[in-house]
Amino acid sequence: MTEQNKNQNAIGVFDSGLGGLTAVKELNRILPQENIIFFGDTARVPYGTRSRQTILRYTKEDIAVLRQHPVKMIIAACGTVSSALGMDSPVEDMPFTGVVYPAARTACTLTKNRHIGIIGTPATIRSNGYVNAIHAIDPGIAVTAMACPLLVHLVEYGYTNRNNQITRLAAEEYLMPIKKAGADTLIMGCTHYPIIREIIADIMGEHVNLISAGEEAAKYAKKCLTQQHLLTDRTESGHNIYYVSDSVESFRENARHFLPDAADGQVFSLHI
Amino acid sequence: MTEQNKNQNAIGVFDSGLGGLTAVKELNRILPQENIIFFGDTARVPYGTRSRQTILRYTKEDIAVLRQHPVKMIIAACGTVSSALGMDSPVEDMPFTGVVYPAARTACTLTKNRHIGIIGTPATIRSNGYVNAIHAIDPGIAVTAMACPLLVHLVEYGYTNRNNQITRLAAEEYLMPIKKAGADTLIMGCTHYPIIREIIADIMGEHVNLISAGEEAAKYAKKCLTQQHLLTDRTESGHNIYYVSDSVESFRENARHFLPDAADGQVFSLHI
Repeated sequence: MTEQNKNQNAIGVFDSGLGGLTAVKELNRILPQENIIFFGDTARVPYGTRSRQTILRYTKEDIAVLRQHPVKMIIAACGTVSSALGMDSPVEDMPFTGVVYPAARTACTLTKNRHIGIIGTPATIRSNGYVNAIHAIDPGIAVTAMACPLLVHLVEYGYTNRNNQITRLAAEEYLMPIKKAGADTLIMGCTHYPIIREIIADIMGEHVNLISAGEEAAKYAKKCLTQQHLLTDRTESGHNIYYVSDSVESFRENARHFLPDAADGQVFSLHI
Repeated sequence: MTEQNKNQNAIGVFDSGLGGLTAVKELNRILPQENIIFFGDTARVPYGTRSRQTILRYTKEDIAVLRQHPVKMIIAACGTVSSALGMDSPVEDMPFTGVVYPAARTACTLTKNRHIGIIGTPATIRSNGYVNAIHAIDPGIAVTAMACPLLVHLVEYGYTNRNNQITRLAAEEYLMPIKKAGADTLIMGCTHYPIIREIIADIMGEHVNLISAGEEAAKYAKKCLTQQHLLTDRTESGHNIYYVSDSVESFRENARHFLPDAADGQVFSLHI
C-alpha cells in the first residue's frame, strides 16, 4: 500500500456504546474531509461496571472489528477502555489514542488553582488512569475523582433535559464533593457526559472549566495525523460509516442525542 | 443415564445478571435438597435495553453454558429473556420455565378488581410477554404496564436503601401511572425488583399485592419437577454453584444483595 493510499484510509473510532460519537462529532468539525468508521459495542454497553480483564478482552475485539476496514489511526473514544489501557497502546502499526491523556493534558493547561476534578465510570475511577496521566504531566496538581455509575445510563435513556430531577439529583450527589474540594477544572471522563453538560455546569458553576474527553481525543488525533503526514488530501467532505453490535434500529433511536445527523448515515449491525 | 441418576442432576438457572438469584433463594427455601447451577451473564448485563434478536442470541449461549453440566431442568430467571421467548421453549429434552407465565398465573389468581400492573425492562414491556400471558389466562383482566429502564441499574449499584431519594423518585415516576390506573396487584417483572420491594410497597400502598417473578418461577419449577417425578431423593442439603461471565470479585461484591450466602459459595468465571 503506497503512502498516499494510506492517507485516504479512514479514522477508526470505537466506544462501548454511543458516547464515542461526541468524538466523531468533533472529528467531523475539525477534519471534515476525513472518512470515519465508528464501532459502538451497543450489545455489551456499558463497560464501566465490568472488571478490567473483561474490558481489555472487549477492547481487543473492538479493535479487530475496526481492523477489518482500511484505517490509518484508531481512537478509543471511551473513558473506561482508555483508563483500563493506561499507558499501553493496543496497536503498534498505526497511531492510537485513548481519551485519557488528551483530556489530562488540556486540564493541566487550563487549571489555575492547580486542582482538577474527574468524573467517570466506576472502572475508570478505580483504574486511576486520569490521576496517573495528570501526575505524569505535573505531580503537583491536586485531583478529586468521583465514580458516577448512574450517569451513563441516564444519558443512554434520554434523561438529559436540563430540568430532569433524577439526573440533577444524581449529578449533585456525584459532583458536590468535587465542588466542595475546590477544583476549577472538571474532566468529563466518560464520553457520554457532554450530553448533560448544562446540568453539570449548573451544579459546578460558570467559573469551572468543563473538559469533554471525546473532544480532546479528536483534537489530539488531528495533531497526530498532521505530525505523521497522514491527513487526507481530498477536498470533498468525508463520510461516516457506523457499525453497532446491537440493532440498527436502536442506534437510529439513540444516536441523535450525540450526533444529530448520525441516524441518517450508513449503519450496519454485526455480531461480536 | 438411568432415571434415578437424572433425579440427582442439578436445576440450572440463568439470568442476564444477578437478579436471578432471587429465584435461587426461593428454590433453596422450598427445595433445600436440590443442587443448583446458576449462570449470571454479568459481562453483558443488562439485557433489558437490547434488541429482541440480541436477547435471543444471548439466551441460546446462556443455555449452552448450563448444558455443559448435568441439569434436569432449566429456569430462565430473567424477565427480559422470558418475555423475548414468549410461549416458545428453547429446550425440548427437559422441563423449562421462564418467569412470565408463573407470575402471570399467580397475578390472575390474586387480583380481586381484575386489574394487574406490570413493571419491567424496556425490552420486557415492548414484547408484551406478561400482557399476552395474562390475556391467555383471562382476556377480561385489565393490564397497565410500565417500562422502568433505570431500576435494574439502581439495584445493581446498591441504591436500594428504603430512604434513597434517587431510587424513590425514579420508582414514583414509573409506578404512579399504575397506581392511578387502580391495579390491585403488581407483577415485579424483572428479577432485580424485589430488592427494592419496600420502596415499591411504600409507593403502591399496603393493599396492593406485590408478585416477585423470580419467586413464582421457583414455585412453578417445584411443581413441574414434582409432576414429572424428577425431584431428588437426597436427604442432605444441596449445593449451589455459581458461574459468571465477568469477574468472581464483582460477583462476591454484589451477590449478597440478592442472596446473603451466595458470596460464600463456589464461584467460577468463564468467557462467553
